[in-house]
Amino acid sequence: MSGSVTQTTDGSVATVVIENEGRLNALSLPMWRQLRQAFEGLSHDRDTVRCIVLRGAGEAFASGADIAEFERERYDIESARAYGKAIHPALVAISNCPHPVIAMIHGPCVGGGLEIASRADIRIAGEGARFGVPVNRLGLVVAYAELKALLDIVGPSVALEMLLEGKIVGAKDAASMRLVNRVVPDAKLENEVYETAKRISEGAPLAARWHKKFVRRLLEPKPLREDELDESFDCFGTEDFKIGYRAFLEKKKPQFKGR
Amino acid sequence: MSGSVTQTTDGSVATVVIENEGRLNALSLPMWRQLRQAFEGLSHDRDTVRCIVLRGAGEAFASGADIAEFERERYDIESARAYGKAIHPALVAISNCPHPVIAMIHGPCVGGGLEIASRADIRIAGEGARFGVPVNRLGLVVAYAELKALLDIVGPSVALEMLLEGKIVGAKDAASMRLVNRVVPDAKLENEVYETAKRISEGAPLAARWHKKFVRRLLEPKPLREDELDESFDCFGTEDFKIGYRAFLEKKKPQFKGR
Amino acid sequence: MSGSVTQTTDGSVATVVIENEGRLNALSLPMWRQLRQAFEGLSHDRDTVRCIVLRGAGEAFASGADIAEFERERYDIESARAYGKAIHPALVAISNCPHPVIAMIHGPCVGGGLEIASRADIRIAGEGARFGVPVNRLGLVVAYAELKALLDIVGPSVALEMLLEGKIVGAKDAASMRLVNRVVPDAKLENEVYETAKRISEGAPLAARWHKKFVRRLLEPKPLREDELDESFDCFGTEDFKIGYRAFLEKKKPQFKGR
Repeated sequence: MSGSVTQTTDGSVATVVIENEGRLNALSLPMWRQLRQAFEGLSHDRDTVRCIVLRGAGEAFASGADIAEFERERYDIESARAYGKAIHPALVAISNCPHPVIAMIHGPCVGGGLEIASRADIRIAGEGARFGVPVNRLGLVVAYAELKALLDIVGPSVALEMLLEGKIVGAKDAASMRLVNRVVPDAKLENEVYETAKRISEGAPLAARWHKKFVRRLLEPKPLREDELDESFDCFGTEDFKIGYRAFLEKKKPQFKGR
Repeated sequence: MSGSVTQTTDGSVATVVIENEGRLNALSLPMWRQLRQAFEGLSHDRDTVRCIVLRGAGEAFASGADIAEFERERYDIESARAYGKAIHPALVAISNCPHPVIAMIHGPCVGGGLEIASRADIRIAGEGARFGVPVNRLGLVVAYAELKALLDIVGPSVALEMLLEGKIVGAKDAASMRLVNRVVPDAKLENEVYETAKRISEGAPLAARWHKKFVRRLLEPKPLREDELDESFDCFGTEDFKIGYRAFLEKKKPQFKGR
Repeated sequence: MSGSVTQTTDGSVATVVIENEGRLNALSLPMWRQLRQAFEGLSHDRDTVRCIVLRGAGEAFASGADIAEFERERYDIESARAYGKAIHPALVAISNCPHPVIAMIHGPCVGGGLEIASRADIRIAGEGARFGVPVNRLGLVVAYAELKALLDIVGPSVALEMLLEGKIVGAKDAASMRLVNRVVPDAKLENEVYETAKRISEGAPLAARWHKKFVRRLLEPKPLREDELDESFDCFGTEDFKIGYRAFLEKKKPQFKGR
């Protein structure tokens, strides 16, 4: 049993579930590939999907790469590089997904699990969630791209504190470290996340995708080109702007079409 | 009645007021132009002005671009681009103003109002202030430059949370999101802001301008040139340094001249 | 009496002490040079040292450059530039030191003292610590490189608030400004810091150095080269990875060798 990453869709909200029973949803190599496929598939669906919830099954978010696999898959520099070629694109697929992604975090969110959560746009945690990247106990290092995703969220002081000490912190500390956007009681987590997804889905989908794209772009150091800057005005040519503007004037709730 | 942006000066502290009565200080096109003129004018006055307070009249800071104007001014890509050519320089004029700028925020500070506040150096809010950029309900997008100003302050997680959810948050949440530097009771806001302005004005004006200039420069991704790095030492050639140093030795309060 | 910077080593934890009795550990020119030498020396020792604690003697962390020296050493642009050539490499030596550095902060940590603390990887403060850079009262400016170190930690709003107002803040405010990672009662500070140093020392030393190196590198705006990205996999070729992996499987505490 090597676990699986599955997806379901309910209206405009898709849910991606990481599951590896009895292993705190540790990710096997096939699961990393499925994670990539799930997000790449959802990325192509611009008609139905308006928000994605990313979560773990059972009592955890995800506990990272499956260390039991290391002997076979990740035992030296070459094999680790090959393994990295499966992990990295899965994480990039989350970042590059045009749809807003909410990480719904309960229980352990550690190692690769935290790398996954770092790629979401919004992180909402239950009070019992736990966070950390204790790879210093394995003699391992978070790769540059994954480290950048963490650094963009929490800054250098917190990132180094977590990595150098290898500490596991609770949800309340994670919130004050800015690892998560907000913390709610475990029993209310699912409701809070899906209410947030609903709120996002009711907004204009193209505006959401542009905002996500623009924020990601600004996190890259290279200067913006003129044609990129000009894209800021394209929203005024959409049907959704006309819908939103009319609804505003009529004090009604807009029904956006995503075009 | 399309509102106005006016300014007054009391000693070394200038105040710029955004006013559009009955419209929560929504900014009309003429008001964006006046906002630009106010800051460009104050930027040239390096003798008198040492600090600028930017505030709204009545019960609001500012509620953004005046949506009532959209039908005439901002109805498609071309007209929006032209409108952007009025808004953007006003915001840049605040960022590029050599003097320290404090945003005094009471009541709504939303949409373009928050874009304006993001350009200030220090944001102080009353407890009743409210913040948000709910343009996802209009199908609109915050342009790159304005998004960067927000991102520099709050980082990607909070920026995306605000933009994707389109939520309006209170002053306390805004402080924990780092949108504002501090929150005080509404009745004490004016006093807190002008006390801060006084404290800033009593410091060396050239040091304040260099600090502001250096921080803004470091937020741009391009590497620093040698001559820029060397500017760090110019302060040692100023009369104010001699004044400050002597006052320090004599345990007196320095009276800086700004040269 | 011009003070001194000294160092001791206890097992894998080195301690660097800033001392200038009766002057709140203000740093004289010889002390800046000693600070540089201490960190450059420790940087070369990759066999014994796994963590460095940087602290002040007596009742302060450090109160910055010794202003009493200014008349002789820093009285105009040229002399200040020469003085900068002593200060800056000391600060760079802390940043570039491959070992994790914890700043243990009690009492005043102001001006150059805060510039020093900003170069550490983790900052832990006692409740009585005080922070600020009140150079606006002297007519002086924090140089670009030192400002960048502060900005990387606290962001532009807090940096400008500190510099423009010249305020001195307590430990609790410093924590909410993210100037320090955590605050403990003064009486527990030493214990907290050395427990943290122990925790760091027990992790894989090479992983710690890579993490520190990677975080520092990501704070520079220039894009990563392919060979830099590839360094992320080198850890899988180390003896420490084998040690860590075996210890994980055997549920034992790993004894890393640093190679």
